[in-house]
Amino acid sequence: MASIVTCIAPVNIAVIKYWGKRDEKLILPLNDSLSATLSTEQMHAKTTVMISPNFTKDRIWLNGKEESFENPRLVACLREIRKRATSKNGKNCELKVHICSENNFPTAAGLASSAAGYACLVYTLGKAFGVEGDLTSIARQGSGSACRSLMGGFVRWMKGTQNDGSDSIAEQVFHENHWADMRVLILVVSDSRKKVSSTSGMQLSVKTSDLLKHRVQNVVPQRTKEMIQALESKCFHTFAELTMRDSSSFHAVCLDTYPPAVYMNDVSHSIVDFVHRYNKLKGSNKVAYTFDAGPNACLFLLEEDVPEVVGLIKAVFPPHVEGKTFMRGLPVENAVIQQDMDLLLPSGPHEAGMIKYVIHTKVGSGPKTLDGKNCHLLNDEGLPKNLIS
Amino acid sequence: MASIVTCIAPVNIAVIKYWGKRDEKLILPLNDSLSATLSTEQMHAKTTVMISPNFTKDRIWLNGKEESFENPRLVACLREIRKRATSKNGKNCELKVHICSENNFPTAAGLASSAAGYACLVYTLGKAFGVEGDLTSIARQGSGSACRSLMGGFVRWMKGTQNDGSDSIAEQVFHENHWADMRVLILVVSDSRKKVSSTSGMQLSVKTSDLLKHRVQNVVPQRTKEMIQALESKCFHTFAELTMRDSSSFHAVCLDTYPPAVYMNDVSHSIVDFVHRYNKLKGSNKVAYTFDAGPNACLFLLEEDVPEVVGLIKAVFPPHVEGKTFMRGLPVENAVIQQDMDLLLPSGPHEAGMIKYVIHTKVGSGPKTLDGKNCHLLNDEGLPKNLIS
Repeated sequence: MASIVTCIAPVNIAVIKYWGKRDEKLILPLNDSLSATLSTEQMHAKTTVMISPNFTKDRIWLNGKEESFENPRLVACLREIRKRATSKNGKNCELKVHICSENNFPTAAGLASSAAGYACLVYTLGKAFGVEGDLTSIARQGSGSACRSLMGGFVRWMKGTQNDGSDSIAEQVFHENHWADMRVLILVVSDSRKKVSSTSGMQLSVKTSDLLKHRVQNVVPQRTKEMIQALESKCFHTFAELTMRDSSSFHAVCLDTYPPAVYMNDVSHSIVDFVHRYNKLKGSNKVAYTFDAGPNACLFLLEEDVPEVVGLIKAVFPPHVEGKTFMRGLPVENAVIQQDMDLLLPSGPHEAGMIKYVIHTKVGSGPKTLDGKNCHLLNDEGLPKNLIS
Repeated sequence: MASIVTCIAPVNIAVIKYWGKRDEKLILPLNDSLSATLSTEQMHAKTTVMISPNFTKDRIWLNGKEESFENPRLVACLREIRKRATSKNGKNCELKVHICSENNFPTAAGLASSAAGYACLVYTLGKAFGVEGDLTSIARQGSGSACRSLMGGFVRWMKGTQNDGSDSIAEQVFHENHWADMRVLILVVSDSRKKVSSTSGMQLSVKTSDLLKHRVQNVVPQRTKEMIQALESKCFHTFAELTMRDSSSFHAVCLDTYPPAVYMNDVSHSIVDFVHRYNKLKGSNKVAYTFDAGPNACLFLLEEDVPEVVGLIKAVFPPHVEGKTFMRGLPVENAVIQQDMDLLLPSGPHEAGMIKYVIHTKVGSGPKTLDGKNCHLLNDEGLPKNLIS
């Protein structure tokens, strides 16, 4: 008889960045990393897994399109899940699966979609095959940072020391309720430049960057300790400084790569500049930026500062057409802007449309299983309900 | 009786970058640096120094405008010259000077104008006061990299180890005729962003960048050795790789600074991308880029490759209005462009005007004294011939 299960999994944003593998196949990192899991209310990946004796082969549909099952990372995840299921109960494991997955946010936005996607895949496969115990070491083999999306709150991915990767797992460091007023703004930036994929950028950095070695050996270990202390004591000023420094350190390593891997653009740097000016005006860090392998900014800030910061973002980076679509996600109260614009941006507002839209979200919990027949992405025959041909 | 002397001094472009001081006052660097002196035919600073018993105070005019003599760096240079002159001949040294200086290239272009300016100032003062011996340790106190503009060819500025800076001097490593077919293209880039001055960016990097320490201690010493070998053997491929890597390493340190000091912009990065694509197409490095504390690119290449590279630059970065003003300096032969544009730039030519103009020049000799009354910037009364009021 066929079984079906559907789950959602969150996006995560690293505040201590993962950049560089010590093992390409097992996806073992050169350094620990630490991330905030974002609420699935605003952004999530959703996956349906169906297992049936009627299926003749494993199939997968991503965002409505069937994809090849030859992707070695996908194969590795499914193989590991089946291995675990077999050793547990010996049943069902050789039955074929149909997998259907989609994101509720644009993949093109470059918002760590592969992390949420692989976390969701592995979590849902785990449920479907009745696998228990740590799944992070499996998700890691799909996309390194996916292992950090299997838990809520603040999550640390340990690099581990074993060659087989058995101790390179992710663990929750702080529950999502630990720092309840932490908020996140994702600034989606216009960009036309062709970017280097993070997988190949990372490989090239390991091979060519002198500064990467220093970052991995000397900078990250100390910074990770300090970051955990800042989170523990909920000291936003320190959390912000460490977050911004680690983002810059990561992009510095990318630039030190030969040829350079450049992910931030002029708009990204204007956002950096804006944040530093705002913090200076406030006398302490009220906002922190971090950038992944793309030009979009992720800002951390406390709930009380959201209205003013959003108001200023709209003033300094005016939207193309002001409207509901510019601000998305959690509601934002209107604020009277009293800041002196000259101090925030000496040359006046930027041209319109440099920031396409903003997603307002917060730190949230890990993956969950959805209930009810309507939630599934596959129909009774195991085919996508929404097929893009 | 009054004496007057007028000299010109070159711009230099570092291929191993100077970034970070161990002594702010004496301007002692944290690492050795190495530069190419550019021909004074295309770009130079020009300075007239007049000494007269009739002058009542030291005065200076820069680019036609009188400036305060309170600038401590200017004061330091003049004091050191007078000290040296006194110990030599005891005469003339207390007479007041009038100094008039100008660049034959736009200061706004951000082309290391202070290096050429201070080199010319110190060289001309040296001539006027009859000072002999090393002037680089004096020029260094005006603007660090100025010491490298006192000689032609390839010049190394040694960081030195003495606290008084006496061994932090510049020396010619290779004569300008050593690699006679080396050519230089300076790509002047449009930019509207406010930049961090190199003095304050440097200070901030020393204070905050973890990666700077590693660069200074572990990266630069080895790279400098390799650079000298590449110059010695005239291996352009290696020279180019080292030059590009050092430029990126320096900008990586700037980005790792807190707050980040960002000098390259999207146009700069598009030039980097263009150079790597071109080199890949050619099978070895034919062009090297380097960027100082600004968005302009300086490209090194061999004479035989100039026509094709210039042709491609015009195609990939089309000028606003094609004309004589886009290409300046040494003449360039027309080339038939046979390269496949798709390989150089997957998305077609950039929008027009991203590069404002290009200066074509070569490696040249050090400062020289000019002859004839017409060359002076000051008239018989010691006032500027061209005064901007």
